[in-house]
Amino acid sequence: MRPVTTAEILAVGSELLTPHRIDTNSLHLTDKLNALGIDVRFKGVVGDDPDALAGAFRTALSRADVVISTGGLGPTADDLTREAVAVVLGRALVRDASVEAAIRRRFEQRRLHMPAGNLKQADVPAGGKALPNPNGTAPGIWIAHGEQIIVLLPGPPREMREIYTAHVAERLHARTGGRQVRRRMIRIAGRAESHVDEIAAPIYTPWASSSIPIETSILASPGQIELHLSARGDDLPEIDRALDAGVRSLAEALAPAVFSVDGRSLEAVVGELLHARSWTLAVAESCTGGLVGARLTDVPGSSAWFAGGVIAYANESKLRDLDVDAALLDRHGAVSEPVADAMADGVRVRFATEAAISITGIAGPDGGTVDKPVGTVAIAMRAGQARQVRTFRFAGDRQMVRQQSVIAALEMLRQALIAPL
Amino acid sequence: MRPVTTAEILAVGSELLTPHRIDTNSLHLTDKLNALGIDVRFKGVVGDDPDALAGAFRTALSRADVVISTGGLGPTADDLTREAVAVVLGRALVRDASVEAAIRRRFEQRRLHMPAGNLKQADVPAGGKALPNPNGTAPGIWIAHGEQIIVLLPGPPREMREIYTAHVAERLHARTGGRQVRRRMIRIAGRAESHVDEIAAPIYTPWASSSIPIETSILASPGQIELHLSARGDDLPEIDRALDAGVRSLAEALAPAVFSVDGRSLEAVVGELLHARSWTLAVAESCTGGLVGARLTDVPGSSAWFAGGVIAYANESKLRDLDVDAALLDRHGAVSEPVADAMADGVRVRFATEAAISITGIAGPDGGTVDKPVGTVAIAMRAGQARQVRTFRFAGDRQMVRQQSVIAALEMLRQALIAPL
Repeated sequence: MRPVTTAEILAVGSELLTPHRIDTNSLHLTDKLNALGIDVRFKGVVGDDPDALAGAFRTALSRADVVISTGGLGPTADDLTREAVAVVLGRALVRDASVEAAIRRRFEQRRLHMPAGNLKQADVPAGGKALPNPNGTAPGIWIAHGEQIIVLLPGPPREMREIYTAHVAERLHARTGGRQVRRRMIRIAGRAESHVDEIAAPIYTPWASSSIPIETSILASPGQIELHLSARGDDLPEIDRALDAGVRSLAEALAPAVFSVDGRSLEAVVGELLHARSWTLAVAESCTGGLVGARLTDVPGSSAWFAGGVIAYANESKLRDLDVDAALLDRHGAVSEPVADAMADGVRVRFATEAAISITGIAGPDGGTVDKPVGTVAIAMRAGQARQVRTFRFAGDRQMVRQQSVIAALEMLRQALIAPL
Repeated sequence: MRPVTTAEILAVGSELLTPHRIDTNSLHLTDKLNALGIDVRFKGVVGDDPDALAGAFRTALSRADVVISTGGLGPTADDLTREAVAVVLGRALVRDASVEAAIRRRFEQRRLHMPAGNLKQADVPAGGKALPNPNGTAPGIWIAHGEQIIVLLPGPPREMREIYTAHVAERLHARTGGRQVRRRMIRIAGRAESHVDEIAAPIYTPWASSSIPIETSILASPGQIELHLSARGDDLPEIDRALDAGVRSLAEALAPAVFSVDGRSLEAVVGELLHARSWTLAVAESCTGGLVGARLTDVPGSSAWFAGGVIAYANESKLRDLDVDAALLDRHGAVSEPVADAMADGVRVRFATEAAISITGIAGPDGGTVDKPVGTVAIAMRAGQARQVRTFRFAGDRQMVRQQSVIAALEMLRQALIAPL
């Protein structure tokens, strides 16, 4: 059979055609398909309507080797993907006994009543293969259609991802003829996109026309920049060497702002640096209200190096729980370097940790003044003998100010932790 | 002419088919089109390839009254939208003298050399109308094609938005026959999607064929369900009455699990209920590590009712900062109802608040036991005299367990706050 090289991704769900929801599953799938050397040629969003769905699948089958859909496999009356595909392919829906048993078992284990509609999730277009879903009742479905492949996946990201990884990737790989794409990612904190690109562009621009062409793109989010490198071909060791050399030259030029070249998050890197020193960390959060703690504890195993903290949202908490001097608050205001410093000391003493972070700022929309406009944030850091306090003026709305505060605090701590002891 | 009622939005650009970029222009356009009563039936993403583009426009013209594209109008060789549309419509590209003059003027004013390619931005498919772009060199283009309309807009959001507002909205409105779309959203916590649908489907299913048909869709995320209702027509007061009646009957059937019918988030609703009683809230978080606090402080003005809290990630913090009895920890373990209860009391006393939430659980991936598997979470709540403690067994990964914990805790508090004092 001819190798599959092109894909179309269809996101199914009327809610994805409203101004309130956007399909992001296709980003994950694109990444995975690209890794197999499969190009995504089209992406589409279609509502929960039988005719629209059938039309979208027909169009996709007219122009792509692989058609992958996400969504519309749920138990409700407006989940119609499997029905539409059965119509397009002219196949009957056949109830899969093992899927039916798994659905019944799932409800019994949870001691829940099973609504009758749930059983339609055991229906598979004739000749298709149900792909087990460990996280939900809707299985994925793999259908060979001549030389083409149709894959139906559920919409919830976790279910979609796990079914793809466990049951789709390998099957697709067997059909690609070996061509692959490799990627690298360089993550940078505390620099503006234009500054990063000014340093990076002279380095990566010539790569586009080198013997192993490397594509580079830059992606910015509040407080963080990512450089993405990719190359394709069938000599993987050669491609990997070219990409690794590329990563090395960019990472050297951008050091020390580069915090990871292997996909790790900033919080994971900070955690590993703390753990390597057998240090623990405590946080004192005012305007971020727990965001730093939430992010740190998102890292599995964080209890090894994260002790906890105080959400000192009200000023009374800064006085009572962090031993901030009332005179400091009066003299400098809650958003000030002396108060941030006192908060860091207070939380470090209370939690008896080697490291501490404190954040106090004005996230907006209200509370700004001429001297301290919205976006003013004071951040203090302690790491052993190292101590630092800085005032930032972040741009953007409440959410952006808070996110940038978290990244700036973690980056201050990381800079201290990578310095020699 | 027949009024236009349906639209397809095409986002053009090969970068939008990578794992790193997503089209968001379509959210803005959907909002604007919906306000005119135009339904977005399909959204597509297509790369900078002449055949792919032509195919995408042909498909779109086969199923929508209005086709709006964004992107691919730039000066470079891979900007091909206008060329593809000219081919699809069988029309020649004609240079528009006034656009050409505007482009030349723009370069002269900036004293920049104009690359020759830029003049192709003055080309318009014969019979089309150039729509001036005050923020760039690429004009938008409006093309009448029989009873259908094609609108080409540049990709940069600011250019796209301004051209739409200044030149497209009014022209489209003249073609809609006055029909508009209205929407409602019902938000529900603490119920499974299938259970919500079992109650809701018998109510909403008949609406699809009522005199003012209402479309209903259901959207689930961990711990939370949304029901979206929409209806269209030209008698707005009548549509609003039908939708409001629909919201009322669903909200009654699903009460008291419905926490908002006006788009407010659970944390915003909880904040308003607290504020109405002039109460303040403190949180004691173990496995959620600050997520509850982060979410509450995402609400602007939350300092009026949120005092702060303790991130008691390590057991020492539960003892020291929340006055949990060491014997309780020994006897029942950190993840237990007695410890959750003691944490809630401890944080309420420390922060001197009327309301408190505490969460202690096993988010995974490690730490589970036979008795207390990953997903076991004990949550305690205090609200004035009301007190409650519950143990949950949440399904899913670390992130999902944490998210469901946050919503369950906020929902327990909300239930107490809506009860009569």
